[in-house]
Formats: sequence, C-alpha cells, structure tokens
Amino acid sequence: MAAGQGITQVLERLDTGLPDALERLQAFLRIPSVSTEPAHACDVRRAAEWLRDELTSLGFDASLRETAGHPAVVAHSQPGEGRKLLFYGHYDVQPVDPLNLWDRPPFEPQIEDTPEGRVIRGRGAADDKGQLMTFVEAFRAWRDVHGSLPPNLTLLIEGEEEAGSPSLDDLLRANADELRCNLAMICDTGMYADGRPAITTQLRGLVGDQITVRAADRDLHSGSFGGLAANPIQLLVNALATIKDEDGRITLPGFYDGVPEIGNEMRSDWEALAFDPAEFLGRVGLRNPVGERGRTGLEMAWARPTFEINGIIGGYTGDGFKTVLPGEAHAKVSFRLTGTQDPAPIREAFRERIRSMIPDDCTVTFEAHGASPASVMDISDPAFAAAKAALSEEWGRDAAYIGAGGSIPVAGSFKTLLGMDSMLIGFGRDDDRIHSPNEKYNVASFAKGARSWVRVLDAVRG
Amino acid sequence: MAAGQGITQVLERLDTGLPDALERLQAFLRIPSVSTEPAHACDVRRAAEWLRDELTSLGFDASLRETAGHPAVVAHSQPGEGRKLLFYGHYDVQPVDPLNLWDRPPFEPQIEDTPEGRVIRGRGAADDKGQLMTFVEAFRAWRDVHGSLPPNLTLLIEGEEEAGSPSLDDLLRANADELRCNLAMICDTGMYADGRPAITTQLRGLVGDQITVRAADRDLHSGSFGGLAANPIQLLVNALATIKDEDGRITLPGFYDGVPEIGNEMRSDWEALAFDPAEFLGRVGLRNPVGERGRTGLEMAWARPTFEINGIIGGYTGDGFKTVLPGEAHAKVSFRLTGTQDPAPIREAFRERIRSMIPDDCTVTFEAHGASPASVMDISDPAFAAAKAALSEEWGRDAAYIGAGGSIPVAGSFKTLLGMDSMLIGFGRDDDRIHSPNEKYNVASFAKGARSWVRVLDAVRG
Repeated sequence: MAAGQGITQVLERLDTGLPDALERLQAFLRIPSVSTEPAHACDVRRAAEWLRDELTSLGFDASLRETAGHPAVVAHSQPGEGRKLLFYGHYDVQPVDPLNLWDRPPFEPQIEDTPEGRVIRGRGAADDKGQLMTFVEAFRAWRDVHGSLPPNLTLLIEGEEEAGSPSLDDLLRANADELRCNLAMICDTGMYADGRPAITTQLRGLVGDQITVRAADRDLHSGSFGGLAANPIQLLVNALATIKDEDGRITLPGFYDGVPEIGNEMRSDWEALAFDPAEFLGRVGLRNPVGERGRTGLEMAWARPTFEINGIIGGYTGDGFKTVLPGEAHAKVSFRLTGTQDPAPIREAFRERIRSMIPDDCTVTFEAHGASPASVMDISDPAFAAAKAALSEEWGRDAAYIGAGGSIPVAGSFKTLLGMDSMLIGFGRDDDRIHSPNEKYNVASFAKGARSWVRVLDAVRG
Repeated sequence: MAAGQGITQVLERLDTGLPDALERLQAFLRIPSVSTEPAHACDVRRAAEWLRDELTSLGFDASLRETAGHPAVVAHSQPGEGRKLLFYGHYDVQPVDPLNLWDRPPFEPQIEDTPEGRVIRGRGAADDKGQLMTFVEAFRAWRDVHGSLPPNLTLLIEGEEEAGSPSLDDLLRANADELRCNLAMICDTGMYADGRPAITTQLRGLVGDQITVRAADRDLHSGSFGGLAANPIQLLVNALATIKDEDGRITLPGFYDGVPEIGNEMRSDWEALAFDPAEFLGRVGLRNPVGERGRTGLEMAWARPTFEINGIIGGYTGDGFKTVLPGEAHAKVSFRLTGTQDPAPIREAFRERIRSMIPDDCTVTFEAHGASPASVMDISDPAFAAAKAALSEEWGRDAAYIGAGGSIPVAGSFKTLLGMDSMLIGFGRDDDRIHSPNEKYNVASFAKGARSWVRVLDAVRG
C-alpha cells in the first residue's frame, strides 16, 4: 500500500466513530487498574484482559504475558512490507488518593463540558488509557476502511508503569527478538504547553543518591554536648550547600563533561515556543527561574543538568522543641543528566565531595537510587521529519521538537536492551492533572490524537 | 547555735542511719510519679503526699500546693537566726520507655553491687528523688541530734520538672513572699566528671527558633520543574550553612556582644579539672571538639555560645526514592548563650540572615521557642567559698566551680521572679543514665551527699 492511500477515508471513519470510541474508552476507564495497590490486583488483570479481547477483535494476535507482577499485553498485526513499529503504552493507573478532592467517583468516567473544553473525566483518562486508545482507535478505523490492520505492528502495553516498571526489563530481555522493531512509538507524553503538537526528542537522565551522616553513637543533649560534639545535620547542610555555586552551576569536578549545547534546529524550534518562565512558574506561585545564569528557561527545564535535594531529615521534627543534638542525619538527592553525562563518575564525584566535608570521627554512607543516562533522539532519521510534518498537518500549526525534564525509562530500556530508537508523541496537556484528583483528557486530544496516529503511521511506516 | 557545733554527731547519725535512709528512698522510688503520663496522675499525687507526710513527721510545716497540673510540696522549719535558705528539688520522674531495655522493673528499686560501686537502681534514683532525699536525710539527722530542725529552711519540691515546669512560675508569683529566701540551694546537678565535688556557677541561656521556608504552593515533580523552580530545602541548607564560619564562630552581626572571658579564679579551677575533650567525646563515639578554634574544651562546653540545628525536615523522607521538588522545608535551631547576651536581638539577627538568603518569590516564617539569658552566679558571695570548702572537706579533694552547658530554668525563675540567687550543688555522676533505662544513683553519692549538706548548711547559714 503506497503512502497516503486511503488516509481521508480513515480520518472520516474516525470522526463518525467518535461516539463509539468514547464509549469504549469509558468502559476501559471503569476498570480500577491501580497497579500499586494489592487490593486492585484482579482489576489490573481485568484491564489487561479487556485490552487483549479488544485487540483480538480488531484482528491482532494478542495475548497476556505473565511477569513477576502484573501481566503485559503483547499484540501483533500481520507481517508485511515497510518499517516494523512498536507501539508502547500502559494500562495501569495511579492511585486516587485523596479521594475527597475528586468532584466525582474516579472510576465512573463521564464526558463534561468545561472551560477547558470537552473533557473525559476519570482516573487514567490521560495517563495512559486515553492516550493508548488513540492508536488503538486509529488501527480500528484503518481496518474498517482497508479490511485489514496496518502490517508490521507490535503493541506492548504494560501494567506496571505507575509502579516503576519493575518487570519490564526482564520481559524485554526474554522476548527481545519478538519485540525488536525498527522504531518504538511511545504514547505517554504531552503536547507543548499552549497545545502545539510536539515530538519529545530529549529526556534527561537521572542519578539518585541517599546520604546518611553519623556523628555520635546516640542522640545527645545539646546542653551537655553542644559546642563540643559534631552535629550531623550541620555537616550535611554544609556539604549540600557546596554542590551549586551562586550562578546555579554544579561545582563537582568533571560534572559538565558530555553536556552538549543544543543544536540550531532545536534552538530555533524552542525560540518559536516563546516560553515564558515567569508565566510557567506563576502557575505554582513562583516567579524567578533558578537554573544556571545565562541560560534560557527551556534550556534550564529540558537541556541543562540539575541538582535537587529531594528530601532531608534529622533530629527532632515533631511539635514543639527539643534541644537534641542528633546522632545522624539523612538526605535524598538527585541529578538530572543531559547529553552523554555518565551517571557513575557523577555519583562518585558527588560522594567524594560529601566525604571531604565530613570529619574523620564521623561517618557518611550512601545508597544508590537509580542511574540512567539522558536520551537524545536522533532527529536525522527521516521518520522524525515525516512525523513532524504529519502532526503539523493534523493540528494546523507547526509541530515542535521539545524536551522533557523528566525521564521515561522505557525509552532507555528499548535502546539498551533492544537497540531500538523511540519517538515520543502524545496528546496530553499541562492541565490534565495526571497523578492528581479530577484527572481529565480533552476530547480534542483523544479525537485528533487518533487522527494524528493515522497520519503519522502513514508517514513513518514507509 | 554557732557554726560547727554538733556537726560530728550529725554526720555519725547519718552514717548509722544509712540502712534506714536507703529503705526510705526505695519506698519513695516505688511510687511511679511520671509527670508527663496522665495514667500516672494519681501516682504523682501519691508521691507528693508521701513526701509531705515524711516532712511533717520531721517537724516541718508541710503541705501540698495545688497548681494547674501536679501539686508542689512546700515545707518550712521554724523561724530563727541566720540566712533563710530555700531547698529545691523535684519528686516527679521521667517515663521509663523503652521498658525492654531495663534489666529490672524500673519501679522496683534495689541496691546492687556493680563495677561502678554500690548503686541504687531504679527510675528517679538520681533524677531527682535520690538527690532531694540527700538534704531531707541531712535535716532528719540534724533534728535527731539537736532535737529540732535547722531554722529558717523552706523546701520547694515540684512535681512537673520533667514536663518543663509549666506551673512553677505561677506558683512562685502567687507565693513570692512566702518563698523568697536569701539563697536557693538547687539539688538537681552533678559532680564533675571524675567524681570531684562541684558547685555549678554558670548555666548557658537559650534561644530556640523554628524556620519554615515555602517555595512553590505545592509539591512539584523535579522532572518538570527541576532547574526552574526554587527548592526550599536548598534555600534552607544554603542559609543554615552561613551561620558558622570555618573557625566555628557564629557569623551573625553583634552576636558576641556580652560574651565575657571567664575570670581568673574560674580559669584556674577549670585548668585543674584537666578536662580531656577526646576522652569526653570518646564516650559517645567521637573524638574532635568542634567549637571555636583556640578555645579549651571546657570553654566550648560551658562558657562559649553555640549554634545547633536540632531538627530539619523537608521533601520525601520515607523508604526508597521520590523525585519530588517539595513546596516547603523546616528546621529547628537553638543558640546557647553566655554572659549578658540578649536573646531578642540575637533571634532577630538570625532571622534577618535567613530572610536575606530567601528569594523574593519564596517566603520564610519563624516561630519562637524559648528565650532565656545565661545565668552566672556571683561567686563573690562568701556563701560560695564557704560551701566550696565544706564540700572539699567532705570529699577529701578540692571542690570546683564548674559550668553547665544546659539551662536550669528554675534558677532563672528564682532570680527573675523572687530576686533570689541560687547555688547549684548535686551529687549525680555522668554515668547515672538519667532519662534512660537502668537509671542508678551511687550509694556513695547518697550517703556523702547527705553528709555534704550537713557541712554546707553549717557553713552557709551563718
């Protein structure tokens, strides 16, 4: 089948079928597939089975794949010519706490007219059931028009994403030959803030570390020992205060090795986004960007490495006051990485800095929490330009290459374990309230998202 | 009665009466007068009544004084010539948790032979029932020999010391004329580390403060906002790291106003104590004193002001890891004061420093926790030299004027509310494990403590 053939009919088919598609999504959303809560284990499996049956009815060869935790759904269309594409999504959802902040029962979805437009309200509407159903509905319309599914498709829909995907790497290793395609399409990201379509092409990496500073072998009374005995909170505070300088730069030796400047095409795309840091921060009650001096807001958010203290605790933290001089203090910190920064030497440089600030009668110990390099997609692959053009066509405005501050570990796993690049396209919006009460997904995201996949599929599969 | 008369017989009477005195102390210790636990309220009152009855049987005019909390016991001997002395102690005790770390039931005291000598083991043995019974037994022996109590004595034994003495100031105000004496004798301190008798003549003051730094109006995901949004933990850490410099000096402007150098007599007493900071810190697993460079260990512990971070908390502090960028962070800090340092401007200088480190789109708020100036006793009062000589005589070694790092608020209340100076003499030892499981009081402290009071009373009352 040549590129472009039958696109118009498929898009029309999606438009006329939208009411039914919304019914199907709501049926999916009614299954409370909360992967982190053991009480919902059967519901999680039920959601996997619902999806398997749905895909089977479309003509996919679909099955559950058991893991140490929740099952994944794997499906294949018939073999054929052109690129082999893997579509990734996840059918599990976040917990709903705090329930009292929801305006309606989180697993009784409904369509609402709101100032934000028509939305589907309910847990999982945007993250990720609504998003993954955009490509499922695209495949359905394609089959309805052409009589068969697009060939060479593999679907991998996992049920543990919100739990940190503990079984995913094992699943990829055990089924590498079956799952390896030419390109992975990951539908778990969003559009740019103003609703512009976007392809996420760079994700920061992460190094997480936990620090425990120990001084006296017990908690002391600050009256008796204050002025003589080392205070582990003070030691920790003094050490953590040295990691960044006044210009927001990280002071560890060698830290910036491998941090690239962004390319010209990306820089021009980002300038066009007219990102306003003050407006962005204003949504959470702040105003001043705190990243490296001389960098633009989007560079700070997407393209520059960072250091954050994610948690700290020590001494007495209850009501009132105790003049304790504690025996130990703890912190959790993380670095976001870009380019080819190597997690291992960065972790070691950090630990060496902390150690150098601890006197020899105290001790410091560390516990590693996660290490993943940044992902930067190779946009010289023509599939990227093709997908960008297809998105621009559907949305009537220029699609952008954007970055994301966070990590999407599945993209790293695809690259590392299967040697497969990823393209991240999604239709979420900043106000979707994923992970929070009153999650929603715009009907426009759902409808035009499905239409987008038809165009992207046609443009990319070759 | 002239000074010195009858001393020998009174001391002999104490020696022969020791077995009975130990029985009485153990009866007192069997009453679980835990003032902070409502379940023990009746036991607390029972201990007050036991003490009142004991003092009445000695010839005191003794009564319970009701307060908003637990009653105090007030007792008077007959009026007469010489100094009026107020003896202070407390009959309430610390909770016993963790109970499983006690080698025996904490309220079933017994005499044990141990490597530390013969000891009375049980909750309250040292803090403060055993200590206050040293002067009660001294008065009993005096009466037995002389037929009447020493004149001009007032006893004030409170039942809320371990709860922070919430009713004490009201009691002092309401009974100021009755309780005001020429000098207060406070028996709630210890001897010097090596068992040398001591009079505690300086106590540090305290300024406590609590800091809350707020940045974003909610917790953020560090992937989305890291690099742009202010991190309140980092702000707090940066600010707290500036309070002390590398030489251990506090950097707040005007902080050292009113900090005196210690006098020559004190300095020579302290040198004679041959304090070894490494040995002292070695007991809690440390080695290096951390106070101001160029100061002796005892100056750091007793005579120099300090800054301590007593508690800190912010962000995610549970198991595992979350890449949260929190909305707020908190710390509790305290300064120990010496000389005539004024708590109010020190608190304000601290707050001004913290404020100066917080950007204008974030906020910092403070909550005051306690403000008391240091107490430095006027050792030019001849009573001090007389008491020091009496203690040296009893223990066969030179008594010392020592400092204490902590605060004993009752001394400040006596001074402020009654205009009365205090002399702090006690016989506790560093290894008594007060506030901890297996509290004990050496039988030698108890026996020679009572004998000490006979000598001190004779020397001081004039």
